[in-house]
Amino acid sequence: MGEGGNVRECIFCAIVEGTAQASVVMRDEIVMAFMDIRPVTRGHLLVIPIEHYEYLADLPAQGAERLFAASLALAASLRASDLAPAGINLFNADGAAAGQEVPHSHLHVIPRYPSDGFRVDAEAWRRRPPARAELDETAALIAVSRAGNGPG
Amino acid sequence: MGEGGNVRECIFCAIVEGTAQASVVMRDEIVMAFMDIRPVTRGHLLVIPIEHYEYLADLPAQGAERLFAASLALAASLRASDLAPAGINLFNADGAAAGQEVPHSHLHVIPRYPSDGFRVDAEAWRRRPPARAELDETAALIAVSRAGNGPG
Repeated sequence: MGEGGNVRECIFCAIVEGTAQASVVMRDEIVMAFMDIRPVTRGHLLVIPIEHYEYLADLPAQGAERLFAASLALAASLRASDLAPAGINLFNADGAAAGQEVPHSHLHVIPRYPSDGFRVDAEAWRRRPPARAELDETAALIAVSRAGNGPG
Repeated sequence: MGEGGNVRECIFCAIVEGTAQASVVMRDEIVMAFMDIRPVTRGHLLVIPIEHYEYLADLPAQGAERLFAASLALAASLRASDLAPAGINLFNADGAAAGQEVPHSHLHVIPRYPSDGFRVDAEAWRRRPPARAELDETAALIAVSRAGNGPG
């Protein structure tokens, strides 16, 4: 069980327990997938660990592995379905600052269609690129942290 | 080797081969991570398979597993670094329709900071939710496809 979040009031835990409604696509002992009730495109799925963990970073390695594997399998199912998307986005928000709204870790699987209007903040991607020296400096910051925190 | 894409002109393959510049954070025999040259926030990383695969869906299971595991490890490194982000986004665009710009599969690891201005299309998320019946119908479409395409 993850330390963060209030399991008792967690809407995703209620879905797991069957006390809240969901349109379920798959479920096994570790992960579950259902339709996002605020889909950005038709077929937008959420994939969650059955057990309550607030952050993706909290999941045990095997749980995270299953979550990603299930998401890829569901992406393949979406492609093979009559929805026939032209592309797929995988998206995770870990932490409120990253846009996480439900404190039970979840991966978005978002089928994409030509001109579906969904976009990831175009403005941010158009900013002027930083100089190589600045990128090198940032890379070193992260790499140093890795060295200091054991193998990745 | 993935079937799609032109390896010879692939900028990420050139980075792998050392003929194009990059600010590298980690590399092993299967995956490599370096700074995005158009970062949406400071510390924005790309994690790629060393071998050229156009789509995430093309990767062998073990390769995809390593890609996700490396991304989580890098997210942890970002959190532990002096960048000290308040949250993390993981993002993958599979296919041009999903916003994929470089035809060599890559996962974005995006550190998030309070008021960093980056956002995933807020308008799309504010749309009126569809009725449960519509969500159930969509879920069934995807689940049927799963049943028809072997175990996920």
